[in-house]
Amino acid sequence: MDLMQAVAAQTSFVQGLLDGVARIGADPPGITRDAYGRGENDAHALIAQAGQTLGLTASVDAGANLSLRWAAAKPEAPPILIGSHLDSVVQGGNFDGAAGVIAGLGTIAALQAAGMAPRRDIEVLALRCEEAVWFGLGLIGSRCLLARLPQGALALRHARTGKTLSESIAACGGAPAALQAGQPLRDPASIGAYLELHIEQAPQLIEADAPVAICLANPGNLRHPFIRITGEDAHTGLPHRFRRDAALAGADLSLALEKLWLEEEAAGRAMAVTIGRFFTPTDRHSLTAVSGGFEMSLDLRAYDAEHLVQLEKKLGAVVAEVAARRSVTITLGERSTAAPGLMDRGIMAGLARAATAAGITAPYLNSPGTHDANNFAASGIKTGMLLVRNQNGSHNPHEAMETRDLMSAIAVLAGWLQEAAG
Amino acid sequence: MDLMQAVAAQTSFVQGLLDGVARIGADPPGITRDAYGRGENDAHALIAQAGQTLGLTASVDAGANLSLRWAAAKPEAPPILIGSHLDSVVQGGNFDGAAGVIAGLGTIAALQAAGMAPRRDIEVLALRCEEAVWFGLGLIGSRCLLARLPQGALALRHARTGKTLSESIAACGGAPAALQAGQPLRDPASIGAYLELHIEQAPQLIEADAPVAICLANPGNLRHPFIRITGEDAHTGLPHRFRRDAALAGADLSLALEKLWLEEEAAGRAMAVTIGRFFTPTDRHSLTAVSGGFEMSLDLRAYDAEHLVQLEKKLGAVVAEVAARRSVTITLGERSTAAPGLMDRGIMAGLARAATAAGITAPYLNSPGTHDANNFAASGIKTGMLLVRNQNGSHNPHEAMETRDLMSAIAVLAGWLQEAAG
Repeated sequence: MDLMQAVAAQTSFVQGLLDGVARIGADPPGITRDAYGRGENDAHALIAQAGQTLGLTASVDAGANLSLRWAAAKPEAPPILIGSHLDSVVQGGNFDGAAGVIAGLGTIAALQAAGMAPRRDIEVLALRCEEAVWFGLGLIGSRCLLARLPQGALALRHARTGKTLSESIAACGGAPAALQAGQPLRDPASIGAYLELHIEQAPQLIEADAPVAICLANPGNLRHPFIRITGEDAHTGLPHRFRRDAALAGADLSLALEKLWLEEEAAGRAMAVTIGRFFTPTDRHSLTAVSGGFEMSLDLRAYDAEHLVQLEKKLGAVVAEVAARRSVTITLGERSTAAPGLMDRGIMAGLARAATAAGITAPYLNSPGTHDANNFAASGIKTGMLLVRNQNGSHNPHEAMETRDLMSAIAVLAGWLQEAAG
Repeated sequence: MDLMQAVAAQTSFVQGLLDGVARIGADPPGITRDAYGRGENDAHALIAQAGQTLGLTASVDAGANLSLRWAAAKPEAPPILIGSHLDSVVQGGNFDGAAGVIAGLGTIAALQAAGMAPRRDIEVLALRCEEAVWFGLGLIGSRCLLARLPQGALALRHARTGKTLSESIAACGGAPAALQAGQPLRDPASIGAYLELHIEQAPQLIEADAPVAICLANPGNLRHPFIRITGEDAHTGLPHRFRRDAALAGADLSLALEKLWLEEEAAGRAMAVTIGRFFTPTDRHSLTAVSGGFEMSLDLRAYDAEHLVQLEKKLGAVVAEVAARRSVTITLGERSTAAPGLMDRGIMAGLARAATAAGITAPYLNSPGTHDANNFAASGIKTGMLLVRNQNGSHNPHEAMETRDLMSAIAVLAGWLQEAAG
């Protein structure tokens, strides 16, 4: 069977799996598949069962990640991994994560239907707990796999169950003791490539009228979750020259960072700034008081490590300027960073050839989001990503990927695998 | 005895009353005298007792306000009222309110010591529940007295006891049924003048190095307690051109209103803008999400009714501009207004003469705050106010009025009363 026909023939198999994980996570109006809990576990079981029907070999690693391996008779090269995750945020959508794992199975099914005999192993990975909501730390499955857990992470507690990460992994068949050694569970040099397919988390492909994009890079970030501004509480009647208004200092800081963002982008340096939490203290703010307290979060993301270094310097200058002008103290507090994930040029070119061969429009695009792919790229593994058109962003019940767009992405992935492993 | 000597001789009487109400309200680190509760009631009892030692006649009106009357033998003119309040905010300071009532008693004591026989009645009023924290509505005692309660106010519930305002007034010896007729408890035409002494709620007298100021006007206000901004929740990775960030719209709106404030003041039109509550929804805001929701409050105050009308038009224009530029909806919501309280020119001139005679520096000043005096002025009663130097604003435990400054203010008030009623 021609490969494109073989891909098309998997549509009902793929749709069945999408519907299956949706039923597991049903939490109207959205989808909740709790990491290390019933939602994620049941989805792992469904996917493992589907892998079995394709003759794949299931195994669970020390981080409780699931691998479904299509073994080559005589491997001529290291394996290619196709990974994503099955957990979701609370009342999110069905496609953030799950679409990537299901696409891996759909791709293998298509290659099998087309009669391909792989020259190297192809594995579908369901990586655990990608979403940061469960432990205040994301990408946990790939961190476990590649020894990239931060110090103390195994002692973090699950937002819903209160169990430690260590206990949660053990309860799902993992072996947390093996994660403490600082050694990756698999040698990065033994991995031929990592591919990930994910819905786009912005409507750029809607705008571009294309079903799929070849990812150029995932952003790295600089995060300050708990920025505190301290001025002075005061009476509504206090003249302006006496005020030390923490809320207006927060307004200044947020708009200054937005201005920085727009200037950087105008200069061709892609980035994003998000002030997600932005608030006067709810236990004491009032209509008739100037607020001496303010709290905000900052997520600053960019696609180039040196750019992030420069942005952190500019952040420092902005903070100093606002603090001095408003006579307030600004404490940036807790800081975390993640390295940008640059995609492999060879894989990008291969994906582009596959798209062209399949007659599919697939522009290059920076990913709006950070993914498990970042950890693979940061570990020196050749990494590629495909982004699938999606109307309404992710982390909400209104994610709206069309199955036909997912099938286009599967066609590109299958074409690339035929070249890389067929 | 010379009047200034007579004033000085009341220092320990005044200090004793200040200390007495402080003991009643003790709630470390601050002072809490709950309206219609034990704090306010005990303070009323203490003040009534002190009035008795001065031979004043106590009475309680239908609003549960306390009057202590120094009756003239043959009244030649309508009475002069000296009023303020004895309730406080939660963990506020000792002087906001109480200093004014105690000053009234200290002034009468001084005039008696100086041998004055009043030609008209002089009354000290302790007005109930001036602070807005108890019912979300302030100046309640003077509203009751002058039939200025808004529709439905008697059904409001006390923040601490849950009792209705009607029940609360009845429990303190008032007669709420008499408040529903829309008739003032006393005919404004039968009141000769209303004088109020209050600590300054900004450090302008510290700056000016003067113990007391003659108030020009109390601000009126336009309030929107619950402004809501609605944009769209989104993922951190969403490019700028797609964002409808409600928090940044709030930042824009607040800074635009601050800019308006500074421009108006530069043009000689005194006012103030306070954004007291300013927050992303705490049940769903997060580090990694653009907030589609935002809430804020607005207190806009000015000293001239026509100026407030103009400011409301400018507010509308600012809101429309921000909403259009940010692609968000801004709902101003609930709206309330209070009329500015202009002080009587004759009384201001009389207070200035009294200050000069006593050798006390007493500049003219706009009051930063709104007071019961607003209701008297708005009812057509000739009204005057003195503001006493105070280091740290009000509504906090650090109010820092010096008793010697209060005695200077009492000297001014006594001098004016000697002229007006002696």
